[in-house]
Amino acid sequence: MITNLMIAPIILAVLGLIFMFIKMTWVKKQNPGSDKMKSISKSIKEGALAFLAAEYKLLLIFAIIASVALFIVSTIVPTTHWIIVIAFIVGAIFSALAGNIGMRIATDANARTAEAAKTSLPKALQVSFGGGTVMGLGVAGLAVLGISLFFLIFVKMFITQGGDFYNEMTMALEALAGFSLGAESIALFARVGGGIYTKAADVGADLVGKVEAGIPEDDPRNPATIADNVGDNVGDVAGMGADLFGSYVATVLAAMVLGNYVIRDMSITNKFSDNFGGMGPILLPLVIAGVGIVASIIGTFLVRIKDNTAKEAEVQKALDLGNWVSILITLVASWFLIQWMLPKTLQMSFFGEGLLNIPSRHVFYACMIGLAVGALISVVTAYYTSLGKKPVLHIVQNSSTGAATNIIAGLAVGMKSTFLSVILFAAAIYGSYALAGFYGVALAASAMMATTAMQLAIDAFGPIADNAGGVAEMSELEDHVRERTDILDSVGNTTAAVGKGFAIASAALTALALFAAYVTFTGIDGINIFKADVLAMLFVGGMIPVIFSALAMESVGKAAMEMVQEVRRQFKEIPGIMEGTGTPDYAKCVDISTKAALKEMILPGLITIITPIIIGLLFGAEPLGGYMAGVCVSGVMWAIFQNNAGGAWDNAKKSFEAGVEINGEMTYKGSDAHKAAVTGDTVGDPFKDTSGPSMNILIKLTCLVGLVIAPILGNHTDINNHQTSIKKEVKVEVNKNNSDNAKATITTTITKNGETTTEVKNIEGSIEEVEAQTKKEDESTKIKTNK
Amino acid sequence: MITNLMIAPIILAVLGLIFMFIKMTWVKKQNPGSDKMKSISKSIKEGALAFLAAEYKLLLIFAIIASVALFIVSTIVPTTHWIIVIAFIVGAIFSALAGNIGMRIATDANARTAEAAKTSLPKALQVSFGGGTVMGLGVAGLAVLGISLFFLIFVKMFITQGGDFYNEMTMALEALAGFSLGAESIALFARVGGGIYTKAADVGADLVGKVEAGIPEDDPRNPATIADNVGDNVGDVAGMGADLFGSYVATVLAAMVLGNYVIRDMSITNKFSDNFGGMGPILLPLVIAGVGIVASIIGTFLVRIKDNTAKEAEVQKALDLGNWVSILITLVASWFLIQWMLPKTLQMSFFGEGLLNIPSRHVFYACMIGLAVGALISVVTAYYTSLGKKPVLHIVQNSSTGAATNIIAGLAVGMKSTFLSVILFAAAIYGSYALAGFYGVALAASAMMATTAMQLAIDAFGPIADNAGGVAEMSELEDHVRERTDILDSVGNTTAAVGKGFAIASAALTALALFAAYVTFTGIDGINIFKADVLAMLFVGGMIPVIFSALAMESVGKAAMEMVQEVRRQFKEIPGIMEGTGTPDYAKCVDISTKAALKEMILPGLITIITPIIIGLLFGAEPLGGYMAGVCVSGVMWAIFQNNAGGAWDNAKKSFEAGVEINGEMTYKGSDAHKAAVTGDTVGDPFKDTSGPSMNILIKLTCLVGLVIAPILGNHTDINNHQTSIKKEVKVEVNKNNSDNAKATITTTITKNGETTTEVKNIEGSIEEVEAQTKKEDESTKIKTNK
Repeated sequence: MITNLMIAPIILAVLGLIFMFIKMTWVKKQNPGSDKMKSISKSIKEGALAFLAAEYKLLLIFAIIASVALFIVSTIVPTTHWIIVIAFIVGAIFSALAGNIGMRIATDANARTAEAAKTSLPKALQVSFGGGTVMGLGVAGLAVLGISLFFLIFVKMFITQGGDFYNEMTMALEALAGFSLGAESIALFARVGGGIYTKAADVGADLVGKVEAGIPEDDPRNPATIADNVGDNVGDVAGMGADLFGSYVATVLAAMVLGNYVIRDMSITNKFSDNFGGMGPILLPLVIAGVGIVASIIGTFLVRIKDNTAKEAEVQKALDLGNWVSILITLVASWFLIQWMLPKTLQMSFFGEGLLNIPSRHVFYACMIGLAVGALISVVTAYYTSLGKKPVLHIVQNSSTGAATNIIAGLAVGMKSTFLSVILFAAAIYGSYALAGFYGVALAASAMMATTAMQLAIDAFGPIADNAGGVAEMSELEDHVRERTDILDSVGNTTAAVGKGFAIASAALTALALFAAYVTFTGIDGINIFKADVLAMLFVGGMIPVIFSALAMESVGKAAMEMVQEVRRQFKEIPGIMEGTGTPDYAKCVDISTKAALKEMILPGLITIITPIIIGLLFGAEPLGGYMAGVCVSGVMWAIFQNNAGGAWDNAKKSFEAGVEINGEMTYKGSDAHKAAVTGDTVGDPFKDTSGPSMNILIKLTCLVGLVIAPILGNHTDINNHQTSIKKEVKVEVNKNNSDNAKATITTTITKNGETTTEVKNIEGSIEEVEAQTKKEDESTKIKTNK
Repeated sequence: MITNLMIAPIILAVLGLIFMFIKMTWVKKQNPGSDKMKSISKSIKEGALAFLAAEYKLLLIFAIIASVALFIVSTIVPTTHWIIVIAFIVGAIFSALAGNIGMRIATDANARTAEAAKTSLPKALQVSFGGGTVMGLGVAGLAVLGISLFFLIFVKMFITQGGDFYNEMTMALEALAGFSLGAESIALFARVGGGIYTKAADVGADLVGKVEAGIPEDDPRNPATIADNVGDNVGDVAGMGADLFGSYVATVLAAMVLGNYVIRDMSITNKFSDNFGGMGPILLPLVIAGVGIVASIIGTFLVRIKDNTAKEAEVQKALDLGNWVSILITLVASWFLIQWMLPKTLQMSFFGEGLLNIPSRHVFYACMIGLAVGALISVVTAYYTSLGKKPVLHIVQNSSTGAATNIIAGLAVGMKSTFLSVILFAAAIYGSYALAGFYGVALAASAMMATTAMQLAIDAFGPIADNAGGVAEMSELEDHVRERTDILDSVGNTTAAVGKGFAIASAALTALALFAAYVTFTGIDGINIFKADVLAMLFVGGMIPVIFSALAMESVGKAAMEMVQEVRRQFKEIPGIMEGTGTPDYAKCVDISTKAALKEMILPGLITIITPIIIGLLFGAEPLGGYMAGVCVSGVMWAIFQNNAGGAWDNAKKSFEAGVEINGEMTYKGSDAHKAAVTGDTVGDPFKDTSGPSMNILIKLTCLVGLVIAPILGNHTDINNHQTSIKKEVKVEVNKNNSDNAKATITTTITKNGETTTEVKNIEGSIEEVEAQTKKEDESTKIKTNK
């Protein structure tokens, strides 16, 4: 049963991890600079590791409780095997590991990037991007390794020769969902915790340091400056790593589950078989993910610049080149993989339309839609958040009349940015579904996520460059070092914004694929919001992202205020800080951020996980579906709104660094308008780095929890029960001009003891004849018996 | 056919209008004060009337285009009569009239309230509340008069003796929907236009006057001060009047439409008849509305205080007394009306559950749920926005660290406030539906809205008192006058916040009732979000309130910036303004606000009206249903978020007037923390007065447009077409412990040429027997033929 193709993703994943180790060794071999630089870098690393250690300790408690709960579920529900607990734990560990690897290399790479920037910009890019590459490959490699290894094991465990393939595969995939659940849960806590940490430190450092004391960013006299740099690593690096790890796994899982439905639909008349053990549609997303790793490795070789006097545009061009080449390779490979692994024509049952024939190339087109929409949403995100573009300039103009108009303008920009993003997203759902059903939607998401390693490399190099600038500033290196790291940092800000757009798009598509898997899995007829309980839960679901965001923001506010008071206290009580003769107590600030982040991440995390369970148990499968849809719709809006508003505010503030023209006058840093822009940026900080990115995980995790508890809910197709269901759909067409000309198609689907047979009958004739014929037919007689 | 009961609401409405005229004459007879006061009051009135005149001119163009479009629809669709155009136009005129009456009396009452405040506080309350009463009765009277008069006419036109009651009534109610559409369209423009006007003037006046020049609110030296006071009237008074007029009409309409469905369901076996021409369930909401007017009149007599040294608490108590008495009277009356007008047992068909028997007292319980939830949501709103409560104090505390933390705290408070509101709202849907289906939901909304006259009187007295304070300040009256108007103003702020909570709750329930009417009207099976097109439109719908809010906020920002620059210019160019020797050019500021408001209200208005039409035509009835649900879910969240954040910021700022303790120190006006709070309030202004309240109209109007275009969409039950539909529902119960014991219920509903018959069949026996029996039965053979 196990084909060579199942080993392929494992090999590709290991390849990626080997390349990661090579790159890691290379980065570590670089010169870490002077003793002062080493010591600063060490402080940042220690702070970050201390936070992660404390976080893991807390998450261990969560993991134990969740494991026990999952084990209990597995003893009650016959389709859930206890092995799901192991999958869950390993998923959690892998997710933590992915974040950890990224963070360690990022804290190693910062001083080395600063040191490299002493000699040249190309070298600095190489080191910082090298760090990013390690992180990207670590995340992608672990994700593909974990999911394909577990899949191999579960196929061995559950799939029997001559057994009921669909139901056995469902059990295997449900156990695999445990891996995804583990990964996504840790991601949620890491994202929220990291987000609170980084912004508490950042806001705290900025408010007292920059605004009150008037000292520049990363000034060593600011007691919160180490905490701020630690924050970049635990939030932007470790948090993001865990986030994308979770997305990646969930996307592949959703596509596999929907692949299983395709196989079921194709087995109605004859048992489906192909050269891949009858698992082609399930294996496809796994193999595409594996190929994406190789494509990303190739892409990373292209990210380099030669010119030491290069500016932002050249650096951006190098990143774009690498990115597009890896996307292109993946796309071409997908074409051949789809041709090879899928039958020429697929049969898929469409809701309300019955079984349709889908050419396999439609699946490829769905992948293209995924990539196209991902790219376009990134373009939209870049437009709304980039320096020099209309929205950011609009905020800049509105800064001249004070902080209030700056805030209003920023909020409006974030809100307006939902328009194009949502239209594109709706088009992606519509298009990929029309092409290849929900399997198409899932593969669109898979295609988007395939080059995660490259995406993450591009994303992660930003915070490394940012930290390098911090190290340069604190070590009082020459100005040209900071200038070079600033170029990288500035490009990093743009790629971060674009990456966020991409992350939202892929998370939303993944959530939809999971949602589709959930509906099919529970065996309900659909989610009808004309039922009051479903509608009520749609509203409750819509409220969750808002509450989640509020809690995250309040946590930042609370932690930031503690930080502000501590920094103020240190300025007051420690003599000679401002003169540079006294040393601030950095550790105290690190400690405040750590404690606040850990305390505050618990409530939003629990709300996300527990609410769907309660709703599912109290109201049943369909209302839970309404809840999921509510979370998705509202979550996507709030994600786009918060990320883009935050990004736009950030760059509006940055615009003043080079100077901007307001009402015909050049305005610079230190002006009143700039101060207003700093206020906007401070408001935007938790938006774009705490609550905004958490939305992605919130929507995915909600759908995953639903998928995992689906077997407990009433309507589940239980393989151990004797069950018969008959479904007849009657479609009648009547020629308006000729009452004697009518057509009817009757599709009958009978599922008995897990086997499904379909029969199609066409009737033509006068209206009366057709009416008489169709009346004889059943439409949907469902009998459920539990023996 | 026309019973006396149809005349009753007309008489009650006329009674309300007569009482309104008496009150109006009384207010106008009061002393308007000194020449200076008269002149200021005149300026405000002229500015307000000039704005309304300009607005009406623009809306005339819209009304003409919309009328032509509606006329074309009526010629194409056989169920839509051209009379809908007349209903639409009259609805629009009545809505404008309601706003106009309110605004005129408010501008008359302001100086008179200030003059009354010279002698005593009780007298000032009497005058300002008298003005509010005029407005409340004007709105409610016109609404009930319009809808019951048109209903009388349409019943005469469409209902024939011995004809098909359900289909004829559907035509009558569809024509009536035109009245509601006209009212709601004008309401949208009035709300948005008025909201932009008032906040542009307010923000402009505050930013330069209070923050830059450091002169107090309503200082006559501020050129924008007249515009600011005009804004209170066109936004808070005229806008709100049109808004509630629209809500009121839409609620009653939705309940009537759903009443018609109840009659249809009860006519399956025998034609329904009662002592009210077979229209009891349709007439009930109209009669309750009429009774609500009388109850409100009685309530207004109780709003009075005796003590001249009374404080906010006493004034609030007087208002509460009047409010609760009118609610109680309405509730008691409803009990008897329901007993009298409805049959003891109602039959309603529930989705997926078939025809159920509902005792009429369940309808009363649904009304109680409506009132309870309305009151509770008001309590929640009050909690999140009131002085001295935790959320506002939280914002105050966060003001000490600057504008940024104040903003973050305010946003978080607004977001958090969605939690309880949405839970209550979801409970209301769930509960009232469980009690009496969507008819129950509609009657819950009707009960909430029944005392609109009283609600509005309480709401409208606030802006009058606010304006009275402005007149007192500008006329440089003695301090105790301002103190007295300030007490009234402060109570007015609380009632305004509570009123907004109430308005959201009622708008959301109304929208749901309209949504239910839409689904039943189009004849679709429900709104299944498991279909990709429906899901895509759910997302698009979710985006609309966000975009709408963004456009409204940006408009305020744009207009406010123009205003700021104008005020700055006047301070610079007109000599002696600050010394009080030069006179500012008030008219110029009024002009800027007027032009900006009119220009900016067009786009959001058109988006609201045109988008559902496009989606309906392009994608069909079910995706449009998804769109509506998306707008409702997202709209409710953004309405609560924006209104409560705005209200909380406002009161956080006001907290500094009496002084607040921050970190153990008393902090007052003029402190840095206060300045931060002023920034928050400025951000909150468009939230709570422009975009937030527009959400109500947005969601109602979206559902209304859907209802009106429903006949154009494919699935409509067209009475002129030959149509047969057969629906069989099979329910099987099996005893787990005894496989020989199974039960099945088969309900067959056949609709042929508009007539519906139902047959219920019970089968008992062994599983095999039941299975064999049920298989013989059809379940849902639908044949549609267009001859």
